[in-house]
Amino acid sequence: MRTIDHTHDAAATSWLASANGAATDFPIQNLPFAVFRRAGALEPLRGGVAIGDEVMDLAALSRTQCLDGLALQAAQSCAAPALNDFFALGPVAWRTLRRALFELLHKDAVATRPSQVDAVRGCLMPQSEVEYAVPARIGDYTDFYTSIHHARTISCLLDPKGDVPRNFQWVPTAYHGRVSSIGVAGQRFRRPHGQALRDGSTTPEYGPSQRLDYELELGIYVGTGNALGEPIALSRAEDHVFGISLLNDWSARDIQAWEMAPLGPFHAKNFATTVSPWIVTMDALAPYRTPWTRPAADPQPLPYLESESHRAQGAIDIRLEVSIETHRMREAGLPAETMSRTSFSHHYWSIAQMLTHHAAGGCNLQPGDLLGSGTISGPELSEAGALMELALAGSKPVQLGNGERRSFLEDGDAIIFQGWCEREGFNRIGFGFNHGRVLPAVSPSAE
Amino acid sequence: MRTIDHTHDAAATSWLASANGAATDFPIQNLPFAVFRRAGALEPLRGGVAIGDEVMDLAALSRTQCLDGLALQAAQSCAAPALNDFFALGPVAWRTLRRALFELLHKDAVATRPSQVDAVRGCLMPQSEVEYAVPARIGDYTDFYTSIHHARTISCLLDPKGDVPRNFQWVPTAYHGRVSSIGVAGQRFRRPHGQALRDGSTTPEYGPSQRLDYELELGIYVGTGNALGEPIALSRAEDHVFGISLLNDWSARDIQAWEMAPLGPFHAKNFATTVSPWIVTMDALAPYRTPWTRPAADPQPLPYLESESHRAQGAIDIRLEVSIETHRMREAGLPAETMSRTSFSHHYWSIAQMLTHHAAGGCNLQPGDLLGSGTISGPELSEAGALMELALAGSKPVQLGNGERRSFLEDGDAIIFQGWCEREGFNRIGFGFNHGRVLPAVSPSAE
Repeated sequence: MRTIDHTHDAAATSWLASANGAATDFPIQNLPFAVFRRAGALEPLRGGVAIGDEVMDLAALSRTQCLDGLALQAAQSCAAPALNDFFALGPVAWRTLRRALFELLHKDAVATRPSQVDAVRGCLMPQSEVEYAVPARIGDYTDFYTSIHHARTISCLLDPKGDVPRNFQWVPTAYHGRVSSIGVAGQRFRRPHGQALRDGSTTPEYGPSQRLDYELELGIYVGTGNALGEPIALSRAEDHVFGISLLNDWSARDIQAWEMAPLGPFHAKNFATTVSPWIVTMDALAPYRTPWTRPAADPQPLPYLESESHRAQGAIDIRLEVSIETHRMREAGLPAETMSRTSFSHHYWSIAQMLTHHAAGGCNLQPGDLLGSGTISGPELSEAGALMELALAGSKPVQLGNGERRSFLEDGDAIIFQGWCEREGFNRIGFGFNHGRVLPAVSPSAE
Repeated sequence: MRTIDHTHDAAATSWLASANGAATDFPIQNLPFAVFRRAGALEPLRGGVAIGDEVMDLAALSRTQCLDGLALQAAQSCAAPALNDFFALGPVAWRTLRRALFELLHKDAVATRPSQVDAVRGCLMPQSEVEYAVPARIGDYTDFYTSIHHARTISCLLDPKGDVPRNFQWVPTAYHGRVSSIGVAGQRFRRPHGQALRDGSTTPEYGPSQRLDYELELGIYVGTGNALGEPIALSRAEDHVFGISLLNDWSARDIQAWEMAPLGPFHAKNFATTVSPWIVTMDALAPYRTPWTRPAADPQPLPYLESESHRAQGAIDIRLEVSIETHRMREAGLPAETMSRTSFSHHYWSIAQMLTHHAAGGCNLQPGDLLGSGTISGPELSEAGALMELALAGSKPVQLGNGERRSFLEDGDAIIFQGWCEREGFNRIGFGFNHGRVLPAVSPSAE
């Protein structure tokens, strides 16, 4: 577990004005990592850190005299089109670089190390002028299913007498997902084709999905791995986690309903998954930890998924918001409209439990592996992380302010996720945006 | 589809004696690809081709004067620790290199191009002196479930009134598998831990699997991919396939039974998957094509999975054999014992249908992606591709010649797959061996 230190001090401000104040996702207390380049430029992708409205170019910074020792080595490892090598250096290196950046960006640095501040200024680029890439070479992507509120609502929609699957309260359920179709925020993808059983039919049809949905998730990046056959103890699990981003697990509900039994979702999910560019480090999230609790009436975790320190602070209060921007809203110049808000603190299984369970069978995790948290829904229906829940499987369409209604996503719809943490006595830190847009299906003649 | 040409001529022999005669898997008509290096040596992995008892080093060959044009470019692309760049060159390049190697290794070359034969001799290394690696950087691994005989037996074992899943005859069913734990033949792995519901219990226990099994599959390597959102027509599907190897999808049946609903297998499969080193090209397999048939009483494929040319030769008659070598057999110097034999020609869905279905939703395939065919079982129980079928879920243990019995795999058991093709008028070609061994579970104190 990460500890709270001076880098979380709410009184600390930066010499960079846009990093100060409540409006920014990226104050000096955050310092999330991404991979970027100047938009449209023929230049290499490399690692960067967000500060206010700017990106600090770590490749450029590693060529200045601002860093030394492990912090320099860490910054040099970010001078690559993916952060895997940086991840592999481990938590001491991650923390050392983050602390060094905090010192360089702190307002006191203007007086104590003016030449370094000048050098850092030369490494900044406005976020408005850059484009991002998926921040790691993702070796494997695993998607979990670990919100009991989501599982309960979906189960009841499928069968009014339904409850969560019988193993849900014992197993941090997961399936392997598709890596090749993971894209970074801004991803646009075609509505998928697939087989589905239409109402009243006994034989499936093949065609564009009619029940396209989003799923609000966190994307958790594995920092350091484990050897094949070597489990990861719960107490050490978070040492293996670099940080967290926002993830949209786009889902085709009609395809999913037909294909899923017995081997799980395939076409229903593998056409696109969108991750946000910025990875907020576990170090930055230290102040927002909360106790991990389980209702006393529920089965308690098996010993390998249970510990006292995990109970004390195994959860994280990450606030989340989903918005929609339809084609008509965009045409009319209307802003995106909020669909739901929730918090990751409601989650039934924690990140540490997911990671420990993942490795418990001997499966080897590797730097840059991505874990999806599973859809994050809160206890109230208004806190649901998927449209299928909000619109009760189409029986109660969501009413939008411009008169449109949504049971499922329509062509041209953009879905935007935002995330942030706030706590009395600490600064607000944010995750930036994760947005993606649905394009029309491939026309039959194009096939 | 690949056509039969002079490289399949049964009368063709090589100047290399070990490549001739019925005993070798690797006559001049085969020429499968692998990645290798001298065993234990500090030298780079690179691509090689099997001929008789030797490996031809393609990196070394590309530095001789034996090749030119596209064949040279193709060989140069194999001078790498993975064959992805070679795959990406496409089917014309694959075929051009295979034909050039055929000419160089043909017995007539001794007279027509003696200096080149001398150069080729300098690029050979005995297979007994090399070690292999997984032949591609596998971006994504997808495992199918497409033998109706396997599905029917498993369904009946779980429920005597059971039939195959309702979508089985419509969907070439698949799930995403774990890439990180894929190893090459010779892989040894620890018996996995996991949650399982023991007989008579209502709550799961966590511990080593008690029902470890193998699954006989083919491993199909994607050669060239498709763009996200762009489907692959059935008629073009095999142009995207480089070739085929043997694959063991090790499975923990007790973990699988508890975890699988609703999202599919996870711990039950992700601890290890073993692939054979040699990839037999689709070109080499051209003579062994057979019609793809579907019983008239069964649902016929939807149009996107159906075509006349596919009916004519969509299947391949690949013969397969599973053997076991237990610890006691090894200690006593006894040879491995055959468990079952079958053929891939019994499969319900073809490779082309698997590939087309995979991309139909827009999912992008990439060079080096691996598809598992799913367990290959024939119509007779003796042709089953998993021990769970052969031993009827433990109710009828398999009797071995040395007095041992097996319901599931025990520590120290090695499983060996072999594959080959034979047809009147053509040479026999083989796949080599795929073998892997079960090690004891991690002891509790080590966790």
